[in-house]
Amino acid sequence: MTLPTLLVLGADPPPRLGRLTGRARVLHTDDAGLAALLPEADVLLVWDFRSRAVRDAWPGKGRRPAWVHTASAGVDHLLCPELAASDTVVTNARGVFDQPMAEYVAALVLAAAKDLPRTVGLQRDRVWRHRETRRVAGTRACVVGSGPIGRAIAATLKALGVTPALVGRVPRTGVHGPADLDRLIARADWVIAAAPLTEQTRGMFDAHRFGVMQPSAVFVNVGRGELVDESALAEALRRRWIAGAALDAFTTEPLPPDSPLWDLPGLLVSPHMSGDTVGWRDELGAQFVDLFERWAAGRPLVNVVDKKRGYVPGH
Amino acid sequence: MTLPTLLVLGADPPPRLGRLTGRARVLHTDDAGLAALLPEADVLLVWDFRSRAVRDAWPGKGRRPAWVHTASAGVDHLLCPELAASDTVVTNARGVFDQPMAEYVAALVLAAAKDLPRTVGLQRDRVWRHRETRRVAGTRACVVGSGPIGRAIAATLKALGVTPALVGRVPRTGVHGPADLDRLIARADWVIAAAPLTEQTRGMFDAHRFGVMQPSAVFVNVGRGELVDESALAEALRRRWIAGAALDAFTTEPLPPDSPLWDLPGLLVSPHMSGDTVGWRDELGAQFVDLFERWAAGRPLVNVVDKKRGYVPGH
Repeated sequence: MTLPTLLVLGADPPPRLGRLTGRARVLHTDDAGLAALLPEADVLLVWDFRSRAVRDAWPGKGRRPAWVHTASAGVDHLLCPELAASDTVVTNARGVFDQPMAEYVAALVLAAAKDLPRTVGLQRDRVWRHRETRRVAGTRACVVGSGPIGRAIAATLKALGVTPALVGRVPRTGVHGPADLDRLIARADWVIAAAPLTEQTRGMFDAHRFGVMQPSAVFVNVGRGELVDESALAEALRRRWIAGAALDAFTTEPLPPDSPLWDLPGLLVSPHMSGDTVGWRDELGAQFVDLFERWAAGRPLVNVVDKKRGYVPGH
Repeated sequence: MTLPTLLVLGADPPPRLGRLTGRARVLHTDDAGLAALLPEADVLLVWDFRSRAVRDAWPGKGRRPAWVHTASAGVDHLLCPELAASDTVVTNARGVFDQPMAEYVAALVLAAAKDLPRTVGLQRDRVWRHRETRRVAGTRACVVGSGPIGRAIAATLKALGVTPALVGRVPRTGVHGPADLDRLIARADWVIAAAPLTEQTRGMFDAHRFGVMQPSAVFVNVGRGELVDESALAEALRRRWIAGAALDAFTTEPLPPDSPLWDLPGLLVSPHMSGDTVGWRDELGAQFVDLFERWAAGRPLVNVVDKKRGYVPGH
């Protein structure tokens, strides 16, 4: 019996793949080596979720893998029209990041309400300056993105006494459609971006949207940088259309040292880490091995991405 | 009919006292003028809750007011043995600070878990450095102080998936006694000080207690500075007995510019503001007016401090 070939894209070897010993031939590659090895692969594991090399690999020459798994929630870095049109199945790391990201958003919301970044700055200058802070209980959030991450964020904020509204691609029970977006962000104290990056969501947080928000509103992005028109956000913060923002994702990552975003007033910059709690690599590795075992046994995969929509649909 | 005389101690006039127009003669004083005016006062409102002038006013010369209200949760700044032994009734601002302080503690716990103070520092230096952070759900907290503030803190942490244990002066349903303290802080991820300052609690967080805590533990004080042996805490942080701390209260306030606490590794310093959300002065003023109306009507006061114990007992 021929072992299936698993090709792993990424500089660091994933943990937990030891469980596949004797059950798969495992090859490792970086971006540069991908094209040459891809025809040998039955399965491609995109471990380096920042790599965009996969987009260039379709249609490509020779056989393509039947299944591609990405160790990330978003799939925007690999979905190209040719892959979308192909028979290759794409799965993602749905579930791993939900609770960590919800906690991270709660941390950012509470930090903004309690003015913690300024407290850190005042401490550095040894300045004792009492301020009045905001209550979080009784405020309103608009969470854009109604997948498991958005729902976990809404649930955690609700536990803190915040009234959340969820916005998704299509309205359904408990989820507003895009038609309600402007109305909801206009009255939200916290606007949270947690949507997948698709052609519908690219650049959706633009000058118009920041103009609709309240001057006291705080904008948080834990999705993809490209959801946000960063120039428009900079302008909105400089003109005080909104009170503050926290970005964990950027159009260019790492954020270049000369980016004006680093010292924009009221903006907290964090290095794309919202979902990455201690042990996250182990969880991602174990999740892939579970999927691999399903695949090898001929059972249906879970976390299958709708390649037209760009995310895993349904609950 | 003679109007009762209300003496207000504090530089800033409290809001909401307009409701007492025609129903009380209101005098204002600062610390220096207190002794001279006190014999005229039927009621003393300690609006400046940092003033320690009241401690020196008992027994004093002439008549003392029948009732003293302080616009704070703690009463340590005014309770002296002579006042405790007198017939004067003391009330406090029980209730006003519970939810704001609980949110502030949640903000500090989440900020520590998600390494936010370091993120702020890295942003200042324009450094993109990804770190793995901690999950809060599934961790354990020990909340020392089982009054309404401690209970609100425990409830808010519980809403975030933390398992809280409450420690009070005497064990009762849902509350551990002091005998359990070392065992509970030894396994806590978050140790929260929210106890009243009494002879039993003064300096309770000392070298022994920090030695008992886990190296990964984070200590938070939103009570009074004197609950903590600040030198022992500094030593514990320098030697990495514990992972971090956040202090909102200090033995000396404002914290002097030359205090070594300002730049202690892993310590977040905030200027005694945990309970002070927008509108807090209005709430404190309205709460006092409500109490005054009860008092003037001869109805029993609420929020009455047990002057022997140093706090308002019971639920």
